[in-house]
Amino acid sequence: MISSVRIVGSGLIGTSIGLALSAAGIGCDMVDHDARAQSLAQDLVGPYNGETIDLVICATPPSAMNQYLSREFALNPQAIFMDVGSVKAKPQLSVEASTIPMTRFCFTHPMAGREMGGPESARGDLFHSRAWVFDPSGIDSDVRASVLSVIETCGAVPIEMANAQHDRAVALISHLPQLLASLIAKQLIGADESTLGLAGAGLRDTTRIAGSDPDLWSDIITSNSQALKVVLEKLEGDLRFVIEHLDDKESIRDIIAAGKEGRSLIPGKHGGKARAYTYVPIVIDDRPGQLHRILNECADLQVNIEDLSIEHSPGQEKGLVTLAMSHDDAQKFSLHMKEKGWSVHPWRS
Amino acid sequence: MISSVRIVGSGLIGTSIGLALSAAGIGCDMVDHDARAQSLAQDLVGPYNGETIDLVICATPPSAMNQYLSREFALNPQAIFMDVGSVKAKPQLSVEASTIPMTRFCFTHPMAGREMGGPESARGDLFHSRAWVFDPSGIDSDVRASVLSVIETCGAVPIEMANAQHDRAVALISHLPQLLASLIAKQLIGADESTLGLAGAGLRDTTRIAGSDPDLWSDIITSNSQALKVVLEKLEGDLRFVIEHLDDKESIRDIIAAGKEGRSLIPGKHGGKARAYTYVPIVIDDRPGQLHRILNECADLQVNIEDLSIEHSPGQEKGLVTLAMSHDDAQKFSLHMKEKGWSVHPWRS
Repeated sequence: MISSVRIVGSGLIGTSIGLALSAAGIGCDMVDHDARAQSLAQDLVGPYNGETIDLVICATPPSAMNQYLSREFALNPQAIFMDVGSVKAKPQLSVEASTIPMTRFCFTHPMAGREMGGPESARGDLFHSRAWVFDPSGIDSDVRASVLSVIETCGAVPIEMANAQHDRAVALISHLPQLLASLIAKQLIGADESTLGLAGAGLRDTTRIAGSDPDLWSDIITSNSQALKVVLEKLEGDLRFVIEHLDDKESIRDIIAAGKEGRSLIPGKHGGKARAYTYVPIVIDDRPGQLHRILNECADLQVNIEDLSIEHSPGQEKGLVTLAMSHDDAQKFSLHMKEKGWSVHPWRS
Repeated sequence: MISSVRIVGSGLIGTSIGLALSAAGIGCDMVDHDARAQSLAQDLVGPYNGETIDLVICATPPSAMNQYLSREFALNPQAIFMDVGSVKAKPQLSVEASTIPMTRFCFTHPMAGREMGGPESARGDLFHSRAWVFDPSGIDSDVRASVLSVIETCGAVPIEMANAQHDRAVALISHLPQLLASLIAKQLIGADESTLGLAGAGLRDTTRIAGSDPDLWSDIITSNSQALKVVLEKLEGDLRFVIEHLDDKESIRDIIAAGKEGRSLIPGKHGGKARAYTYVPIVIDDRPGQLHRILNECADLQVNIEDLSIEHSPGQEKGLVTLAMSHDDAQKFSLHMKEKGWSVHPWRS
């Protein structure tokens, strides 16, 4: 149905879509205001032969859309339009202000990304099995069908959600943790080396996404300011409560218990409910081949590893590998590894 | 020098110390107000034969210390005393209010722990290569020597730090992320299922430690309220600034850039500066043996894996394994894996 696509924005998302669509035989015309990015993206995606464009995909930062929507419509009046931005409210205003009929524009958001951007980070499988939100309200049925075919060609799972609900959802589950990770990490500036030397896995995990790109994220945050304000002010209220009750054990206990409850609501692997795993920590020498030997044993025993983490101790070449497994697998595996002389310490939870 | 130790508090930390000391031939008298915990801990650690106690280790929650310090001194007037609590300010008041001379009490804090507590989670190697903070100011030289021998017997690295500095340090690098993780996770309560279904790795990492024990953490937080208040109010000010500037891209950009800078200050593996790794993502079928085959290849090539993560995609049995390696190893490994037909997608950063 779709045979030629123009992708405006040759970053991580645009180029990854280009890779997925071109692999399915769809011609992709890659566009970017940065000539280097555009030519690299086109090289990666393969040549575009100048066919008439069936679909224009807006893959720029949300705030840039108003600069090119009417121009793109003038160039491709026959085309269908969709965006793939992280927020909807402000892009929706841009579309309304453009010459594109609202019946021909579908708002979508693939729930995939990376801390690293640019066409060099693109992957044709970036959207494999990921949720891809789209708002079908008010669009023509051929637009809906085309958008669904793009989502499915990229290997993603289409999820219907109205724009307003989408923005509230990502404010809560994406933009809030992003901003708070940045705010926590910001407090480390000026701390002395001995203080920072005590940092553990908790601080590391909590601030991992603070390493994201400031230009991209300031655009996303400011484009979703309305929904985000509600969420941030709710957290601000809770933070004030905590500060006022720092000496009141019951109140602090309630807050931490509420956090524990909230944490348990996040769905687990494969979109299902979070599963309870048994964790099997193993102390290893930190040198090549140790992890491999452990995985060898797992394969021999046919136990399935649900998750794996590696922790390194400061100042010494020792490591701790923790495997997550089903309870039965963990029992079988621990017994076997102990017999073989490994330093295994399963939780008896 | 130390041949018999009494450990008051038979939780994760107390029992782990017991395991480490008894392995070195030191007798350990395990104590807990919970009889089940005490007897389990004593069973794990091995029998105590009633010798005179050389050292009393306070391994209870900080707020409980004032209940038993004078009693323990009356029972063991010849002994040296040390604590292993997460905070110092309130325990210091408890010691000052007790009959124990300040010259005989050393405040210490091993930087090790687990999300799961209790004697059943104890490990004799819990402190291996971990920092173990102690404040040597004002204590007798024999007290210092004994405390150092305990730290070293546990395999930890002694770090001198004054109590006040310790409390400010852990407020920033431990208690702040703990509380904020709880506050972020708390906001998820009441969110509908379709919203939670969009949750990604960012939310998961940011809130991981929100799963910690509310009883233990409310005790730690309230025991360090003074140092924590300063840190929380600084973050509160930054949060207010963010809320007021949600439509101002430059201001938000500066905040996110500051977070990125703060994040980069966290030391990396082995306590050194954070190293730049190259990340090699590999798409796998989510079934037993896949990870093992990958690690097999690493061993054959003699490349060293610095870190490893496993991501599962929602709704489909596919997984993404990401290996962190040196740049040279990553190049060698990627080339080799591609030749072997693996779906490898190295970052060209």
